[in-house]
Amino acid sequence: MSNALQSPPHRAVVEHLVRQTVYSRLGKSLPRSAASPNPLVVNVSARHCHVTQDAVDALFGKGHQLQVHKWLYQEGQFAAKETLTLVGPRSRVISNLRILGPCRSLNQVELAYTDGIALGFDLPLRSSGDIKGTLGGMLMGPAGFFELEQGIIRALRHVHMHPADAEYFGVKPGDMMKLKIGGECGLILEKILCRVDPAFKLEVHIDTDEGNACNLQPDTPCELLK
Amino acid sequence: MSNALQSPPHRAVVEHLVRQTVYSRLGKSLPRSAASPNPLVVNVSARHCHVTQDAVDALFGKGHQLQVHKWLYQEGQFAAKETLTLVGPRSRVISNLRILGPCRSLNQVELAYTDGIALGFDLPLRSSGDIKGTLGGMLMGPAGFFELEQGIIRALRHVHMHPADAEYFGVKPGDMMKLKIGGECGLILEKILCRVDPAFKLEVHIDTDEGNACNLQPDTPCELLK
Repeated sequence: MSNALQSPPHRAVVEHLVRQTVYSRLGKSLPRSAASPNPLVVNVSARHCHVTQDAVDALFGKGHQLQVHKWLYQEGQFAAKETLTLVGPRSRVISNLRILGPCRSLNQVELAYTDGIALGFDLPLRSSGDIKGTLGGMLMGPAGFFELEQGIIRALRHVHMHPADAEYFGVKPGDMMKLKIGGECGLILEKILCRVDPAFKLEVHIDTDEGNACNLQPDTPCELLK
Repeated sequence: MSNALQSPPHRAVVEHLVRQTVYSRLGKSLPRSAASPNPLVVNVSARHCHVTQDAVDALFGKGHQLQVHKWLYQEGQFAAKETLTLVGPRSRVISNLRILGPCRSLNQVELAYTDGIALGFDLPLRSSGDIKGTLGGMLMGPAGFFELEQGIIRALRHVHMHPADAEYFGVKPGDMMKLKIGGECGLILEKILCRVDPAFKLEVHIDTDEGNACNLQPDTPCELLK
C-alpha cells in the first residue's frame, strides 16, 4: 500500500514547484532555497513511541496490526490509531501516547523536556536508536502490559535527507546543521543531526518545546543552514 | 526592606568577579564577556501573573498584602506565596498560577505557548504592559473572584539592562538582541527586547518553552549578542 495513494502532495512540495516555475517564467535565476532539489519541510513531532510487534501483541492482543490514523511525510510512516499509557521510572503517567508505525525492531519513547519534567526525571538526549543505558518504564494497553527495559529519551533534533539533498547542502550523514526559523519570536536551532537515506524526503523534525519556543506555524519561514 | 538583606549575591555575580580577578592576576586581557560591567544572568520565567492591589483585595481579602516566597534577581521583585487559579477565555483552567510581587498598576498573565495550547487559544505575543485588545479571563482566589478584562499574553523575550550594560553592548531601549545558548541542544534566540532602566540588573528572561527547547541548566554557557 503506497503512501502516495493515501495523501495529496505536501503543501511544501507544491509551493516549491510553483516557486521554481515562477522564477523560470520570469527568466530570473533561482534563489538558493528555491534551487534545492527538494522543498524543506519542518514538522513538530509531539511525544510518541515506536514499538515492536511483540509489544503490540502484549498491549493490543496477539497478532494485532497497527491501524493508520494519519500518514506522515516520510514514505510509509504513519501515526497509528493506537495510543498507550506510559508509566515512567518514578511511577508518574503519560496517557494517550501516540504510536508511530510501522513496527520497528526496538521500543523507544520520544518525549520533550517538558514531558520529562512532568515525569520527574532528566531525559537523556540521544540519537534515535541509541538507547543503551537509558531508563525505561511500563507500557499499558487495552490488552495488557509491556515492560520497557530502556528507551525513554529526548531525541536529537534531526533532518531526514535524500542523498541528493545532502549533496546540495554539502553534508554527510552524522554532520550537524542549523535551522533558522523566522517570525516574531524566531530562533536558530543548532546541532540538527543529518540522517541520509535514499528513502528519505527532506524533513526536519523538532519537538513541541522547540516548536512552541518559536511558535512555528505552517507559514513560518524556515531555512536549513550548514 | 532591601533585597540585599534577603539573599546572598547571585552565583553569576560571584563567578563574574572571580573571573575578572583571575584574568587580572594572570596579567591577561579580559575576554569580551568577562570585561562587561555586569555578569549575564539568564533565568527561565515559568507562567505567572502580575496583579493590582484591587485584585489582591478581591482574591485574598480586603487589605491583604502579598507575602514573599522567594526574592528574584531584579531588586525588590519577588515570587509571592500566593497563587491563583485562572479560568481562560474557553473556560479551561490553569491552577497554581504564581503571583509575582509587588503589586503593579495593571493585571497581566504571562504564559508560554504550551500553556496557550492547554487553554485552547492563540496567545498574543506582546511586550509586558502592552495588553490592549488581548483576551482576559477569570481569576479565582481563596476569598473570591476577579474579572480580568484583558491581559493574557505571551511576553516578548527580553533583557533587563542597566544603562551601563546598554552602553557596553551598544544598544538602546527597544532594540533587539540575540542570546546564544550553548550545550548539546543549543540554540540562538533572536529578537530579545532590550529594556533599560537604572534600577535593572543585567538579566535575560526566557519562558519555559524556550528553556526546555535548549535544556537550559545553571552551567549552560550563554552569550548576549547585538
